[in-house]
Amino acid sequence: MALAPPKTAAALVIGNELLSGKVEEQNLVVLARALRGVGIALRRVVMVTDDVDLIAAEIRALSSAHDWLFTSGGVGPTHDDVTIEAAAKAFGVRVTTDPDVLAMIRAYYKERFTEGHQRMALMPEGATLETSPEVRWPTIRIKNTWLMPGVPEVFRMKIPVLLSRVGGGVAFVSTAVYTKMDEGVLKPLLDRVVAEFPDVDVGSYPKWADPTYKTKLTFDGREAARVHAARDAFVATLPEGEPQRVE
Amino acid sequence: MALAPPKTAAALVIGNELLSGKVEEQNLVVLARALRGVGIALRRVVMVTDDVDLIAAEIRALSSAHDWLFTSGGVGPTHDDVTIEAAAKAFGVRVTTDPDVLAMIRAYYKERFTEGHQRMALMPEGATLETSPEVRWPTIRIKNTWLMPGVPEVFRMKIPVLLSRVGGGVAFVSTAVYTKMDEGVLKPLLDRVVAEFPDVDVGSYPKWADPTYKTKLTFDGREAARVHAARDAFVATLPEGEPQRVE
Repeated sequence: MALAPPKTAAALVIGNELLSGKVEEQNLVVLARALRGVGIALRRVVMVTDDVDLIAAEIRALSSAHDWLFTSGGVGPTHDDVTIEAAAKAFGVRVTTDPDVLAMIRAYYKERFTEGHQRMALMPEGATLETSPEVRWPTIRIKNTWLMPGVPEVFRMKIPVLLSRVGGGVAFVSTAVYTKMDEGVLKPLLDRVVAEFPDVDVGSYPKWADPTYKTKLTFDGREAARVHAARDAFVATLPEGEPQRVE
Repeated sequence: MALAPPKTAAALVIGNELLSGKVEEQNLVVLARALRGVGIALRRVVMVTDDVDLIAAEIRALSSAHDWLFTSGGVGPTHDDVTIEAAAKAFGVRVTTDPDVLAMIRAYYKERFTEGHQRMALMPEGATLETSPEVRWPTIRIKNTWLMPGVPEVFRMKIPVLLSRVGGGVAFVSTAVYTKMDEGVLKPLLDRVVAEFPDVDVGSYPKWADPTYKTKLTFDGREAARVHAARDAFVATLPEGEPQRVE
């Protein structure tokens, strides 16, 4: 019985600091691995500056072309945080203050509460506040779009909430073969396995200056039996002394 | 005298292994920092799978909307390396074998040369092979689009070649102020400096669980005097005991 095609996702990474190289992007790989673990295929990532119209246009395009969209960054209270306004614009709704979140913020800051903090309670009208027993500070979701924070430590904290809602799919299966052969020599052997196993994603990654191997071959898919069959078929075509290892 | 607007760039990052989270993207921050050093503004990044039509469409769109486009990945000889074919498609030219590169490859592999290696000499018709005295292995450039390798060690090696052609601009100037104040409290002070210095890009980045500061404020621009004036104007509005430090 063939599996249904996987759900798809896109990510929109927001922030001038990333495009200028001042800050190194760290959330994408965390998101990609989390989604992969529940069988969701991350298909496209776009990184843009803190521009409200640009972000709104991307949210509109990416959310309608994928099952899920995850944005990262721009959800704080300062002038460069425009993701909530952009999401509202994308879905044609207003920005409103959520009374429950406002109460949480007031309770947290107590006598230090300022008007600036009030902006942290803004959300697109009709959005849902997602929490889990372990992660009580809410994450904003509007339709299929999750507005995740950019701060890496906080982004990571929110992953369980996200998985509790979008999860439940069949995880992708991955296996790797390491060889000391170079890609030019491997090409005909790979072509053969690619032709024979169209449902398995075969990747080839040369490594520079590693004494233990030269090229890593990966075999990925959603049916373990097919993935392993593809790998074994490939390994059977290798010359004596290869592969170096299988993972 | 006002500076001319900066040249702009986009990056197209190619590879199933990045979107699946199997491999962590490492080239973007290197490219962003190199471009910033020569005054080129990286404005947009797109990450896509190894799909030739998708890549061709992105190359067409990104190269026409920016002064420069840099692609990363998909330039090897195996089935998942489709960037050269995609670039040819994007610019409406054929893929041809470059005789000089073929000769280099033959000389390098000698008796180990195979048909698979031959694919490493493919390039879009009309492309230029860019080298520098230090980096003799060529990088393919077609019009304003550079086809960079995905392997991080090799990507880094190519940066000097790229800068020798696209460089020469006025570097961006950046300065940072660290405070123990939170963004809600900082917001009105930031709004003031943003309004007074529209030519300076002001960023605000909360840090989680760092004992030395809570929020980092950055001031970026192309005129050092304005960047420093904006920073000083902001620092002058801070309460006693702040900032923690200035960099």
